Amino acid sequence: MPSRMTLLVSSLINCSHIMRQEAFGAAKVNASLQFSVRGRALMGQKMFAVLEQARRIESQGAKVYHLELGNPRLPPPPAILSRTVQALIEQEVGYTQSAGHPALRQAIAQLRERAWGHTITEANVVVSPANLIINQFFDLVCDPGDKVVFFTPAFPSYWAAATHMGLQVEGVTLDLVTGYDLTDEAITRALAARPKAIVVNSANNPTGAVYGREPLERLAVECDRLGIWLLSDETYGEISFGRPFHSLGGLELPRLVVMSSFSKLFSVPGYRIGFVIAHPDVAEKFALSVSTLVSCLPIFTQLGCVAALDCIEDYTASVRERCVSMTEWCDQALQGTNRISFVPPKAGFYYFLDISACGLDDLTFAQRLLEEQQTAVTPGSSFDPSLRSHIRIATCGSVLDVHEGVRRLVALAETL
Amino acid sequence: MPSRMTLLVSSLINCSHIMRQEAFGAAKVNASLQFSVRGRALMGQKMFAVLEQARRIESQGAKVYHLELGNPRLPPPPAILSRTVQALIEQEVGYTQSAGHPALRQAIAQLRERAWGHTITEANVVVSPANLIINQFFDLVCDPGDKVVFFTPAFPSYWAAATHMGLQVEGVTLDLVTGYDLTDEAITRALAARPKAIVVNSANNPTGAVYGREPLERLAVECDRLGIWLLSDETYGEISFGRPFHSLGGLELPRLVVMSSFSKLFSVPGYRIGFVIAHPDVAEKFALSVSTLVSCLPIFTQLGCVAALDCIEDYTASVRERCVSMTEWCDQALQGTNRISFVPPKAGFYYFLDISACGLDDLTFAQRLLEEQQTAVTPGSSFDPSLRSHIRIATCGSVLDVHEGVRRLVALAETL
Repeated sequence: MPSRMTLLVSSLINCSHIMRQEAFGAAKVNASLQFSVRGRALMGQKMFAVLEQARRIESQGAKVYHLELGNPRLPPPPAILSRTVQALIEQEVGYTQSAGHPALRQAIAQLRERAWGHTITEANVVVSPANLIINQFFDLVCDPGDKVVFFTPAFPSYWAAATHMGLQVEGVTLDLVTGYDLTDEAITRALAARPKAIVVNSANNPTGAVYGREPLERLAVECDRLGIWLLSDETYGEISFGRPFHSLGGLELPRLVVMSSFSKLFSVPGYRIGFVIAHPDVAEKFALSVSTLVSCLPIFTQLGCVAALDCIEDYTASVRERCVSMTEWCDQALQGTNRISFVPPKAGFYYFLDISACGLDDLTFAQRLLEEQQTAVTPGSSFDPSLRSHIRIATCGSVLDVHEGVRRLVALAETL
Repeated sequence: MPSRMTLLVSSLINCSHIMRQEAFGAAKVNASLQFSVRGRALMGQKMFAVLEQARRIESQGAKVYHLELGNPRLPPPPAILSRTVQALIEQEVGYTQSAGHPALRQAIAQLRERAWGHTITEANVVVSPANLIINQFFDLVCDPGDKVVFFTPAFPSYWAAATHMGLQVEGVTLDLVTGYDLTDEAITRALAARPKAIVVNSANNPTGAVYGREPLERLAVECDRLGIWLLSDETYGEISFGRPFHSLGGLELPRLVVMSSFSKLFSVPGYRIGFVIAHPDVAEKFALSVSTLVSCLPIFTQLGCVAALDCIEDYTASVRERCVSMTEWCDQALQGTNRISFVPPKAGFYYFLDISACGLDDLTFAQRLLEEQQTAVTPGSSFDPSLRSHIRIATCGSVLDVHEGVRRLVALAETL
């Protein structure tokens, strides 16, 4: 199969061309098409390009082991599906409020109020796809050329959004040797850059690190003092298992925006529903942004999330259990080779693997893994362009994908 | 009830403040919050603010007659709901390709290929919420300060998107006296403005006009010759009944982007699924934009649309029938007063009503209609800020809403 696979994956690296086929105008490609500055800057998310490439290979009959996307394959809470289905049967398919269905906004407000111990109302909550929220945040608070800081490696959507908008990204790298933890030194460097905005992501994708209360609060309070906007992406907070998760939502700071998503909480990434919690003036801007960009989100999926919120504690406990057992298995499997260095994750289902001992850069490694071992992963440079010797794997897929994919990854590393 | 209603609607006009409530930080509103240029420019879509206000009133026990939003209340095709439900039951809730599910892109390509008589493939099609497509189009082809032309009155999303992005909008007004038709003079004025992009919308929202083949093609060909991007919004094309609809998709022009939506075709605005058909290089940019902004759309709603495409002709025939009978009823009811001038729509379910004989501006009229007659409409200035003596009504809601709402609208007009 290698030769066929080689052919099939030949365009993996040059992901921007994966969609091209023979079709109207393709033969007469018009070099004079002038896109805008932002149109030219678009980079997308590489793991989606990898997914597309993998699906294309599969559509031609080959099996691919998926480790590229955080696409949980756990059964979602029955309540989310049954309530969504019920709404569809009742033909609840009209428009709803741009800020989100009131029942969902209220349920989220109550959930966070219980966790944070201060008043949260509907006016603090806006429902929007989590990936869009990242774009909306930068759009609302940054102008082109403004500086933003990410602690890296950082989720590719932050890079994609900032690049699209012409922002200047300063990456503050967290290290494997300190367990990818948020150190005082990293915070000092981030603040010293005097950015317009900082993004902090605990529990972290891709490292699985969970940050302590003290550094997180120091960061938030200092941002407030210096007039820096702070986006706290807490998408993986509830599925921390190796260290207690601390939310920044307990602080009532006007420039602090807390976001999360139901994609991972309820194993429904295809629902495309996340939420922000912010000062009412900021939430109002997010709602106007939703209205401008997408009008509103579906009612039926939002009602599904309302129903599932009743069982969030039990369900996330089961997700954590699954994460723990999968992590135990993967830790052991990955420790079977000395070609890969990593820190066992304390949350979620990602491993950020240092493959420098393999002697290949991340893109070449990923390409050979897909070609020779039919296993898809995300190159580390998606998380920081300066990191060329890492890959990320996601272990939330099917047991077959994870076990066989990791075995194949180790097998390739051993041959190098 | 007037006094209670007066109280309830007091904030209707100042729509930007509807979300404010007592909540964290609201008491200490921080005037120092600095939003970006684009954040400050956000205006949203007024009809969603009207909807929210109406729902707020309803939640306090009052009945409101809804004429404000094109929110069809017809039963959708059974196939769309049953396929969506099936996908949910089968737990198809993961990520999918950013450009759209391949089955949906193929089905759309086949549909349009049949209609247009030239090859359309998956590479020409990208699935995205129609409202987002408008934003993506401007984002891909315009830089801040660029000029865009709309034929007005024009769908509020065009204004919201262009304003948010700092574009300079030149409205070319179409007239009631010429049936809001696209005239040669209007085309000449649009081209003479030498904009970066033009948006043309036939069948039209809000006027219900359907443009002839000749002016449409002249516009498209001239745009191509002059290097002007053209967005042809054909959302209401299939539900034209008073004049044959002509799609611009028959022309293979690299700067022509054709868009449509399943919201109105299948009476599922809550599905939030539309699509563009464009040159592959342009489609590729749209796909990168979807990847950057929202990652992808739900699988289950996309599969529902695939299933419904099998019955699109029968279903849209039934929608047209409903539009015709509702239009006949409304024409007669609205002709019952000489305070309102209008052109009977030839497509869709909107009326753009000239209320200048009533002696009130659009915002005051809309406010009094909600206050005194419990009927919600969209002020005409949402469709062109210079039009202050028009309102738009949507007649696709429940029969009760439409019949009683229009009666109440006429009743108010008669008292003025």
